[in-house]
Amino acid sequence: MQTDHSDVRAAMREVNRIFEEEVCAGGRFAALERVYTRDAIILPPGQQSVSGIEGIIGFWADTCRSLKVRSCSLRPYEVAVAGDTAYEVANGEVGTENGPVPLKYVVIWKKEGGSWKWHRDIWNLNS
Amino acid sequence: MQTDHSDVRAAMREVNRIFEEEVCAGGRFAALERVYTRDAIILPPGQQSVSGIEGIIGFWADTCRSLKVRSCSLRPYEVAVAGDTAYEVANGEVGTENGPVPLKYVVIWKKEGGSWKWHRDIWNLNS
Repeated sequence: MQTDHSDVRAAMREVNRIFEEEVCAGGRFAALERVYTRDAIILPPGQQSVSGIEGIIGFWADTCRSLKVRSCSLRPYEVAVAGDTAYEVANGEVGTENGPVPLKYVVIWKKEGGSWKWHRDIWNLNS
Repeated sequence: MQTDHSDVRAAMREVNRIFEEEVCAGGRFAALERVYTRDAIILPPGQQSVSGIEGIIGFWADTCRSLKVRSCSLRPYEVAVAGDTAYEVANGEVGTENGPVPLKYVVIWKKEGGSWKWHRDIWNLNS
């Protein structure tokens, strides 16, 4: 077993890239099936939580369209892995037609079917 | 080793009770030293993160006074333990002089000096 979990970290970076490039920049919301677990829960600010991949895909499709999201930058500054679970603490920024939106978030990752995915996802805005 | 982690869960409930009763209801902010790790980070909505127990005590003292917080109810619906780390996903409600504020949060717990404490704490409001 690698104690630095460099393989896990590389897999996590690739999943984050899917969210940044395929989802936020590309608008390909079906790619979220490779980002979130089937029974993921997101906890968005300003509303109730959303459970399950179908609802999550709908949330991001609606949100990206209504906010005119054009890009996203995820900047994790802490990653800890324990067994089939990991957590990530991060800053981020969403680029919209009305300007950048700085935010921060925590994602609980889970290994599902051999792939590391976002299992619990909560964020808020910095202002 | 207990696989249901009932001992850990009981310890976590007691720490949450300190936050609810001693901190939010009682206004005894020094009790936060028994809630958060020394190098905890909180990620509050509407501002930058705050690192370290001293800054966190200051944050909650300021926030509870300015919002006139009188009570707090923490309602975790998921707890997962892995080694010396755990995560908790929860709903909550802060009672203020201006009425209740429903919220949701994720806490990453860490065992520090034999005690389970909040290590990373992020929340947002439901409306």
